[in-house]
Amino acid sequence: MRTAICDRFGIDLPLFAFSHCRDVVAAVTNAGGFGVLGAVAYSPEQLDTELTWIDEHVGGRPYGVDVLVPGKIDVSAAGRGARLADAVPDRHRDFVAHLFAKYGVGGGEAVSAFAEGVGRRVTAEGATGLVDVALKHPIGLIASALGPPPPEMVGKARQAGVPVAALVGTVEHARRQVAAGADLIVAQGSEAGGHTGEISTMVLVPQVVDAVDVPVLAAGGIADGRQMAAALALGAEGVWCGSVWLTTQEAETPPVIREKMLAATSSDTVRSRTRTGKPARQLRSAWTQEWESAPESPGPLPMPLQMMLSEGALARIGRAAESGNPGARELATYFVGQVVGQLNQVKPARQVVYDMAEELAAAVERLRAVTSDEPRG
Amino acid sequence: MRTAICDRFGIDLPLFAFSHCRDVVAAVTNAGGFGVLGAVAYSPEQLDTELTWIDEHVGGRPYGVDVLVPGKIDVSAAGRGARLADAVPDRHRDFVAHLFAKYGVGGGEAVSAFAEGVGRRVTAEGATGLVDVALKHPIGLIASALGPPPPEMVGKARQAGVPVAALVGTVEHARRQVAAGADLIVAQGSEAGGHTGEISTMVLVPQVVDAVDVPVLAAGGIADGRQMAAALALGAEGVWCGSVWLTTQEAETPPVIREKMLAATSSDTVRSRTRTGKPARQLRSAWTQEWESAPESPGPLPMPLQMMLSEGALARIGRAAESGNPGARELATYFVGQVVGQLNQVKPARQVVYDMAEELAAAVERLRAVTSDEPRG
Repeated sequence: MRTAICDRFGIDLPLFAFSHCRDVVAAVTNAGGFGVLGAVAYSPEQLDTELTWIDEHVGGRPYGVDVLVPGKIDVSAAGRGARLADAVPDRHRDFVAHLFAKYGVGGGEAVSAFAEGVGRRVTAEGATGLVDVALKHPIGLIASALGPPPPEMVGKARQAGVPVAALVGTVEHARRQVAAGADLIVAQGSEAGGHTGEISTMVLVPQVVDAVDVPVLAAGGIADGRQMAAALALGAEGVWCGSVWLTTQEAETPPVIREKMLAATSSDTVRSRTRTGKPARQLRSAWTQEWESAPESPGPLPMPLQMMLSEGALARIGRAAESGNPGARELATYFVGQVVGQLNQVKPARQVVYDMAEELAAAVERLRAVTSDEPRG
Repeated sequence: MRTAICDRFGIDLPLFAFSHCRDVVAAVTNAGGFGVLGAVAYSPEQLDTELTWIDEHVGGRPYGVDVLVPGKIDVSAAGRGARLADAVPDRHRDFVAHLFAKYGVGGGEAVSAFAEGVGRRVTAEGATGLVDVALKHPIGLIASALGPPPPEMVGKARQAGVPVAALVGTVEHARRQVAAGADLIVAQGSEAGGHTGEISTMVLVPQVVDAVDVPVLAAGGIADGRQMAAALALGAEGVWCGSVWLTTQEAETPPVIREKMLAATSSDTVRSRTRTGKPARQLRSAWTQEWESAPESPGPLPMPLQMMLSEGALARIGRAAESGNPGARELATYFVGQVVGQLNQVKPARQVVYDMAEELAAAVERLRAVTSDEPRG
């Protein structure tokens, strides 16, 4: 099965796989799809290492890199040189300390050096550093989540001959992204994991397809071949999936999170600002519940401050959960879409690609069969 | 185009149209689809009149009736005989009076006799009265929104040989509805108008299809043929649409609401408890905003009390809006799904059916063309 986008990107199946794990990226690329490495968790040096590893494992087949470029971020309290962490109010640090105490996770600094690094990398400046590293590798796509790609990033990518993709949640944002130079739009529905808008994939995709003259990938709610067929029926030229890889064999998903995902239904996610400061879908947990509803909750900070606070705290929570701490297990959460309800077994990433291709073919055949008669009218 | 469900229901296109307007129901049925009349706004006598009119206009072609049967309703404060209206607290009446004053809508009783009637009809007792009337007509389907169909309703429908459909928003509810006797499941995604759950159509439909052994219709986010093709790709045997009829020529949608709908984007709806007491998607307006966010808002009451309060108030607001009152125009709202962003012109309902059939055929043909090669793997 090939759409126009397959020829353009040199792939066999119009399936783009977003993952933070290089093994997943390489496995999908080698299975005929297009792996995209999420770069935000890496320093520029680490990213270089990851991409070098991918280069050595995909034999020249195409893959891409995704950076997080927020459109607007509030770092007014932390200029160049100042520690972003200093802009995190005491009330918010105290609430994290309170959660650590209440759930028996143990103390420590609320904002770590790791968190400071993550916070820096989601500024436009930080993202550009990652882009520079990425463009030294033979990547086939650079994707920008959240805001429109900065002109500098588009310029560098153009010069390197690398197409730029942009994730959007509304028709208006799609138009803006294309005006800013995006070559490919990922129309992402509300059901997606991570940062996401309010409009569902079913409603968003056809409207974006009608509004822009660049190819559109559908994202959000896609984890099997029926959903892939549905996305193509809506007018998308391919799909962009993230959640489905989290329970694959190759994914470095922490065991506690993986168990939670395998057990979760589609009702067990929440779109919440409590992890990054912007609405992002994730597993509902004591962390999201306390921040959303506890009387003493100060409410989430804007990005990147909330992200720094929660990445640091959740890293500690994750370690405690993995060593059997029941309170930490309750708190532990991770970005995932509503398709988590379909993720009930661990499979190799390659197998997920092959299964989706087969289910897609079967769905199209079924559709063809039921529509072989002419409609009345 | 025919699915198994077309033969079962005697229709040419697996398109079920939910509407409160008999003209829409008749138009869709006459165009080869299946019209379903929403009965909740009618007294048993009125419903009989509406169905008699439909009988006279569809020449024996099939149509159905939808009643609202809440699973649990809190009418503890109002027993048989007592006025439901007496259970509406003063704080809530006062807030409505405050909104009338703030927006210049003029005074009057917050809860009218009309509202009392609506409140009564969404009790199991009230719904049964409507079912009795419906079953005296040659209907082809009786649908139950919200709760599982009461055993009495299923029994009566069975005896009359009329299949029972149930709307659900989760896999668990689908299983429960089938166990309670539903012959057909309408899996309705979060993007739908009216009472709706949190899981999107894209995610919900394949899971429901896998979970139950009765036919499944997809609802939510479906207003054109591409979306209909997507729903069939997900495994549904047909679709159930409501919003798309609201801007048709036949619909009795008040002009102010129709204008708002034609102008709205998909970001202009909200899933809120402020209209009926249960989460229902509708146009975002000053009414929903004030109830959700005003410091003096007492918050919505449970169903049916909030429904009584708001149906009475919004009826008055609607009359004021239609006579040019700008404050009333701001307050005016109506149930509609996220597809409202696609509703940009007024068309005859018949034309909507024909357009969907054509777009469906085109979408399937496009899908067939791009998947004619075999996937690698």
